[in-house]
Amino acid sequence: MQRYFIQTDLTTQEFNLPAEVFHHAIKVMRNQVGAQLELVGPDQQVKVVELTAIEPEQAQAKLIETLTVKPELPVQVQIVCGISKGDKTEKIVQKGTELGAAQFIFYNSARSVAQWNAKKAVKKVDRLQKIAQGAAEQSHRVVVPEVIYCQSLAEVLAAIADANYRTVAYEESAKQGETSQLAQIVQQIKAQLKNDTQNPCRLAAFFGPEGGFTAEEVQTLQAHQVVASGLGPRIMRAETAPLYLLAALSFGLELA
Amino acid sequence: MQRYFIQTDLTTQEFNLPAEVFHHAIKVMRNQVGAQLELVGPDQQVKVVELTAIEPEQAQAKLIETLTVKPELPVQVQIVCGISKGDKTEKIVQKGTELGAAQFIFYNSARSVAQWNAKKAVKKVDRLQKIAQGAAEQSHRVVVPEVIYCQSLAEVLAAIADANYRTVAYEESAKQGETSQLAQIVQQIKAQLKNDTQNPCRLAAFFGPEGGFTAEEVQTLQAHQVVASGLGPRIMRAETAPLYLLAALSFGLELA
Repeated sequence: MQRYFIQTDLTTQEFNLPAEVFHHAIKVMRNQVGAQLELVGPDQQVKVVELTAIEPEQAQAKLIETLTVKPELPVQVQIVCGISKGDKTEKIVQKGTELGAAQFIFYNSARSVAQWNAKKAVKKVDRLQKIAQGAAEQSHRVVVPEVIYCQSLAEVLAAIADANYRTVAYEESAKQGETSQLAQIVQQIKAQLKNDTQNPCRLAAFFGPEGGFTAEEVQTLQAHQVVASGLGPRIMRAETAPLYLLAALSFGLELA
Repeated sequence: MQRYFIQTDLTTQEFNLPAEVFHHAIKVMRNQVGAQLELVGPDQQVKVVELTAIEPEQAQAKLIETLTVKPELPVQVQIVCGISKGDKTEKIVQKGTELGAAQFIFYNSARSVAQWNAKKAVKKVDRLQKIAQGAAEQSHRVVVPEVIYCQSLAEVLAAIADANYRTVAYEESAKQGETSQLAQIVQQIKAQLKNDTQNPCRLAAFFGPEGGFTAEEVQTLQAHQVVASGLGPRIMRAETAPLYLLAALSFGLELA
């Protein structure tokens, strides 16, 4: 069933379809009276609704049922990436949304070949946010991850101030055979989820652009409680490493 | 350092650069005398070599050292995919190679919209094999995964006859909250790797095309000892699920 995110929670049994849903569901997808859709509001509840009347410029629907689903990763993951070239940022957002990321932060790191200026960043973030919404609908999530741009590492550090777990995927750590940090983080998160349901559980994970991070950048991160982790013995592309981390977290926390 | 796969193992200290390496390393990348390359032969050893002389149609090199590296996943993974549309098969091969797959098998499953005939399959496999080689070089692996096309499920079952672990990513299993099968398989593989280093350790993992598998297909697979696994509560695209599985295996076997 097609899922749509809406801006305002549904509060009545019968209602007009929100304008953005009307356009896609009726004008583009040509749904007819009797068709069912899933609407997800800021309350993260999934409402199954049925179309009851379609007019040229609006449509009515009624609530059928509210689904209880838990499709979100139990840890909120902030994926922080040095800006990479071409369509890599789009791939990271699309696949990372499917795999459960809570937020994407892009910034110009030392080896970012494709730097964004403030003007370019507005357009890029706008496009990436649309990709996140589409991927969140398709993967049946109840939250659309937020995409933000930071001009500097200082801004990034402010944005991850609440992250009680912090890691950076560092190729040199992998080369030196570092194989335990990520597993340790997963164990710590698992213990927190079991014993402490009060406090937020948030992981900030840093990934370099194509050329990776410089040793200085990693030192700066380490000074801010960011732990260098190896992600296995194979060299991954800039857009693959975040997907590895998210899949590993899902396996470690949701399946294992 | 640039890595190249070569057809024949190096047996001498000084040698002519193989023709396919000469073309890329000298003509395309314009390496000069003194530059170092990594050559990997069928013996899976990584030889660091240095260019000693460059002529118009050939180049000489000498062996500097042989590296001892273990970049391969400890379980040989056969990724079996119902053929999907567009560039999805290419993404599966490129990213799946980075993540350690041993083999890719594509076949026309019931809901494959983009079916391959025998003629098209030859061209596709040829192109996918080149992508696998490029990705294996870039991710510093010592094996190039093989890409094969099977005309029928019967052919696929013959190709995975040696696989002592078998799973199918089934959306219905995930919807019904199946969360333990993949973790069980990882535990079984882990136990085998620890206790039984004699026998092969091989996992065949099935993934549907965009529309997934039919219930009948899953029943047929289950009759051939293929276990249905859920891969977490989010719906993944056809090209994302194999990457999730490979990352989960790497995390479970190489890091955790």
